[in-house]
Amino acid sequence: MRTTVGWLADGPATTLRQASLQRRDLRPDDIAVRVDHCGVCHTDLHAVRAPREPGASVVPGHEFTGVVTETGPEVTRFAAGDPVAVGNIVDACGTCAMCRAGQENFCHGFPTLTYGGTDRHDGSPTLGAYSREYVVRDRFAYPLPAGLDPAAAAPLLCAGVTVWEPLSALGVGPGTRVAVAGLGGLGHLAVKLAVALGAETTVVTRSAGKAGDAGGLGAHDVLVSTDPDRTAGARDRFDVVIDTISAPHDLAPYLRLVAMNGTLSLVGHLGQVTLQAMDLLVGRKKLSSAGSGGRPGTAALLDFCAGHGVTADVEVLPSARVNEALDRLERNDVRYRFVLDLSDLS
Amino acid sequence: MRTTVGWLADGPATTLRQASLQRRDLRPDDIAVRVDHCGVCHTDLHAVRAPREPGASVVPGHEFTGVVTETGPEVTRFAAGDPVAVGNIVDACGTCAMCRAGQENFCHGFPTLTYGGTDRHDGSPTLGAYSREYVVRDRFAYPLPAGLDPAAAAPLLCAGVTVWEPLSALGVGPGTRVAVAGLGGLGHLAVKLAVALGAETTVVTRSAGKAGDAGGLGAHDVLVSTDPDRTAGARDRFDVVIDTISAPHDLAPYLRLVAMNGTLSLVGHLGQVTLQAMDLLVGRKKLSSAGSGGRPGTAALLDFCAGHGVTADVEVLPSARVNEALDRLERNDVRYRFVLDLSDLS
Repeated sequence: MRTTVGWLADGPATTLRQASLQRRDLRPDDIAVRVDHCGVCHTDLHAVRAPREPGASVVPGHEFTGVVTETGPEVTRFAAGDPVAVGNIVDACGTCAMCRAGQENFCHGFPTLTYGGTDRHDGSPTLGAYSREYVVRDRFAYPLPAGLDPAAAAPLLCAGVTVWEPLSALGVGPGTRVAVAGLGGLGHLAVKLAVALGAETTVVTRSAGKAGDAGGLGAHDVLVSTDPDRTAGARDRFDVVIDTISAPHDLAPYLRLVAMNGTLSLVGHLGQVTLQAMDLLVGRKKLSSAGSGGRPGTAALLDFCAGHGVTADVEVLPSARVNEALDRLERNDVRYRFVLDLSDLS
Repeated sequence: MRTTVGWLADGPATTLRQASLQRRDLRPDDIAVRVDHCGVCHTDLHAVRAPREPGASVVPGHEFTGVVTETGPEVTRFAAGDPVAVGNIVDACGTCAMCRAGQENFCHGFPTLTYGGTDRHDGSPTLGAYSREYVVRDRFAYPLPAGLDPAAAAPLLCAGVTVWEPLSALGVGPGTRVAVAGLGGLGHLAVKLAVALGAETTVVTRSAGKAGDAGGLGAHDVLVSTDPDRTAGARDRFDVVIDTISAPHDLAPYLRLVAMNGTLSLVGHLGQVTLQAMDLLVGRKKLSSAGSGGRPGTAALLDFCAGHGVTADVEVLPSARVNEALDRLERNDVRYRFVLDLSDLS
């Protein structure tokens, strides 16, 4: 085993403490990555705050960038010194229909999650990238394109690919009218990507304060959802609505914004959803959902971002301030993604 | 006013009695239709059985065929003696974006329903086609193509167009894998239309008895949904699932049948729907809904049915047996649509 250091919540703890962690010795197709930057995702907050079994511990972190330090003997795609990026999936069966279609995120055998999962070979629990080192199967690491800032690129690997998948699956491009509801980690990347894809992009937000940021992200319009006249005027206006709101909420006002034959894609709140069938029926609207992506989609996103200069708006903190980051994320006090700098763990 | 006779439930009555009814005098763009055949829709059952305000009455019937008996002076599309068909919409604003797109069923001003609606000009309540005469704006009547049996064609105007709309909107054709859940009035027409469109069509039913009918309707396969091995084997198999089940039900088992990027279209139960976002997310599936259709879609359906010899499987009863038909429909005892013969009202 290899020893590293990271941030861990054990037992019922709802905050993280620095701890020594063990990583597996490299298998033939593994690489070891020195983690330099890791984004702070809402999922991490849930994982730390949620009740856990006694004895269960969690090391969060599933969108990170770093540098390859060592490679297993079968690895040909990477060499020591290569900059890499890793997202929220680190393995999958590779043989089911979904894996064969390049959608490892939908693996019928369930993908191995970067943390909180179970390794497919040794059955050990996976520990995330709030840590100085991560060991990962080579095919679930991606070359980090030159020109992308490693800190600002880290959130592309979870938040980015989550919004990229519906944007690309729904064919968003020039002429598409896109609304992005909610302006957080997911939402601000959805805006940047939709704009870069050439779509006419509108931010829908309840926060007049965030409305002022929309133009800076490249959005062409803003709809403050508490303004009844504006929202009534925007009825049936958008081909695609990306709903990034993380709390449970009524879908009806957002379905009303969807144009005939258009789609509302849920990416923020992935729990139980209740709606009226008539809100889909009238205008022949569709509801979909997305989260994470497969290997080809993730690689395509990184290429696109390198070509269009898209990265997240980040606030970088030394990893020792991780609990402060989680507290502020819980209060929605970040524009728009915290990224931990893990170099303080060296 | 014109006087005719029909079947009416007044006050709190949950059965229909024969009554004299008044129709408006023809406006310049109206036609009078002698109603020969009217299908018995689940909506009719709800309308008759549902609690009503004291004094409120209902005459059901919104899928009918008959013969033009008289035309207003501006009518050019029809002449006395023409066979016609009328569905569940008899007027719309004509100016909103939905009407301009030929989707009068989604009219922003709400379409005027064939019964239980309010006339846009004189404010009178609309009375349905369980009646010997109906007066309708000419543009909401359709020439009944030669070769379609008038009794078996009547259900095309509501049940037929309701399932036609998602089949055509979703591009169902040769190579598409379609499942139809539920085998009633809507379901059996969905099967016939999907087969006629060239799709590989499977019936999904809980009833082993109805499973035996699937082949007779042209279906290529049957899935008895109570068989766990068969349903597990059909996971992710269908590009389109048309869910015609009229009672509230769990969508999860039907979403599991949908293939990656496929769609579950709800056409049977149009109330509140609860689902797990993850059941859409995994496989990037879509939920939609449909009910009724616009003028171009209705005309296209009638053309298609004439070209492919598609009509409903009907049990024709004299209209005096209307209450028996509603009772048996309530018990799901019909294969697959009752049609009333109104000639007994002459």
